[in-house]
Amino acid sequence: MRSEIDETPDALARILANRDAIVEVAEQIKSADPRFVLLAARGTSDHAALYAKYLIEVLWQKPCGLVSPSTTTLYEARPDMSDVLLLSVSQSGGSPDLSEVTKVAAEQGALTVAVTNTPDSPMNRAAKLGIDIHAGPELAVAATKSYTAQLLSLYLLIDAIRGGDGSDAVRIPELARFTLDSTATEVAEAVQRYRFVGRMVTTGRGYSWATAAEGALKLAETSYLTARTYSGADLLHGPVAAVDDQTAVLAVCSAGRGGQAMPEVVNRVRDRGGDVLAVGSATSDVSAHLRIGTPECAEELSPILEILPVQRLALGLSLVRGGDPDNPRGLSKVTKTR
Amino acid sequence: MRSEIDETPDALARILANRDAIVEVAEQIKSADPRFVLLAARGTSDHAALYAKYLIEVLWQKPCGLVSPSTTTLYEARPDMSDVLLLSVSQSGGSPDLSEVTKVAAEQGALTVAVTNTPDSPMNRAAKLGIDIHAGPELAVAATKSYTAQLLSLYLLIDAIRGGDGSDAVRIPELARFTLDSTATEVAEAVQRYRFVGRMVTTGRGYSWATAAEGALKLAETSYLTARTYSGADLLHGPVAAVDDQTAVLAVCSAGRGGQAMPEVVNRVRDRGGDVLAVGSATSDVSAHLRIGTPECAEELSPILEILPVQRLALGLSLVRGGDPDNPRGLSKVTKTR
Repeated sequence: MRSEIDETPDALARILANRDAIVEVAEQIKSADPRFVLLAARGTSDHAALYAKYLIEVLWQKPCGLVSPSTTTLYEARPDMSDVLLLSVSQSGGSPDLSEVTKVAAEQGALTVAVTNTPDSPMNRAAKLGIDIHAGPELAVAATKSYTAQLLSLYLLIDAIRGGDGSDAVRIPELARFTLDSTATEVAEAVQRYRFVGRMVTTGRGYSWATAAEGALKLAETSYLTARTYSGADLLHGPVAAVDDQTAVLAVCSAGRGGQAMPEVVNRVRDRGGDVLAVGSATSDVSAHLRIGTPECAEELSPILEILPVQRLALGLSLVRGGDPDNPRGLSKVTKTR
Repeated sequence: MRSEIDETPDALARILANRDAIVEVAEQIKSADPRFVLLAARGTSDHAALYAKYLIEVLWQKPCGLVSPSTTTLYEARPDMSDVLLLSVSQSGGSPDLSEVTKVAAEQGALTVAVTNTPDSPMNRAAKLGIDIHAGPELAVAATKSYTAQLLSLYLLIDAIRGGDGSDAVRIPELARFTLDSTATEVAEAVQRYRFVGRMVTTGRGYSWATAAEGALKLAETSYLTARTYSGADLLHGPVAAVDDQTAVLAVCSAGRGGQAMPEVVNRVRDRGGDVLAVGSATSDVSAHLRIGTPECAEELSPILEILPVQRLALGLSLVRGGDPDNPRGLSKVTKTR
């Protein structure tokens, strides 16, 4: 897991070097002119899909939803999918349920695109178009570099669909390297601070909610913390009641419209006694107990940088709490659910 | 909270008595002939929306998604919403963000329907059509009878759109009364069993995933448990690693296609040492430590019954752990987020 996190900048650079292939897929999507977008994914890839949902609604301005695979696989729903673009996101491309969702969507008239790290996967065979995220082999069960590679690939796809040239992303590999180097001390401090924590809540808004959701999953998978995630708005709608002085709150606070909504959330959590770890490019705007700053970049790209110290935190907490981050108990790399 | 749970059967009967108003809305939706459906909601209502998503995909066979309100409110996205039906679900109809989402969707060409307990709310004024869920005044901060009233109202709407006569639902008020009466002993046992629990995970599949999600929220709001929810499939994709012998797992297992996928999930969490509380009409199919059986009914309607003992469990755990379920710390009834 450690070495795969460290390979992130190289993986991101490979994606930029292969941007032409993404632009080609973008051209085909543009000519199909879909009116509605659906995303199919599970686990870590589901958080990449959540990020893509914001890109699609905000940048491309298309109505968009996340698929519930079981309506296809368990209930055999066969909706009319003409004018629908289905993006299926999976590291392995090997989950039988997502391959079936992709196959059925194609049969029902959707334009289907598989976004995977394994271009010859069953999901790619089921989809009309494919995007290779070029993350390289990922062996640790907890996905890390494949997540950031999914984010950048999906960003470049939506950016190209709306006529962008990807220029905002050019410095991302370098900024990712800088983030890994510059946050090591703060991550080590956070590992010590939260070594004995029993409850953690993660939160964020807008694009950064994907970071909060993926952070909670990574902590649950590797450190066995029952980390719970809520968007900043949903947290205030009820679950804030469960925050107390035994709760650590990881708040993702980056510059931009999502981050501007976070000081209110952090204040409410602090009023309840919660211990706040702020991560992102705008941590100085909130009243946190510990801050892990990441470099500023276009708001849409910030989730690629924010997750890096959080992945390192999950790794560090796993080791210090006696876990094996590469082989979490009870898990395998490809989950065969229906 | 206790008296409002007990009022559920009467609230459900009022909805059936007022079914004609729902059928009228269904007729208008049918003549608009939408191609895609979006749902907007937060908190408990978001779980009613999740339930509706399954109804819409499986019974009505329309592509469907849940809205991220912040793309409208924070990022000012203005997608083309013609051919889209937007269902906004809220007890109070008073959340400013959901009213804004409804207003903007209408401006962008969507057919908008407000599903609320307060027919003169801001959300109703923003929407073209309205459905009154007739739950009666709900004073406890933790929503209970308004949730089941939302479920039944949404069921009757989708059932009417596809030409149903609502006959499957006729016995639901009586079955709800039976459920409340017949599960009291098992709920009391569960309260004692989980009195000191530190971690709880809730899970379910298909329609019953909404029950698992709402159960986790209710426990977090009232008992301050950091209950985490996953669909049965997502749980196996990673978070099962966080289950151990200190974890209670509330597994919703009802007859039907969703429930048939649950024995595998329960076996995996038991392998990890988790203590399993099974709730639903098919609890005898799984290897549980404690079972709370609910009467069988059409699978689509089972979430209305399953949640009743779970609400009572949250209430009981709150009291025994020293909380005040009617006034959870740090919460108010209407949350004004943007």
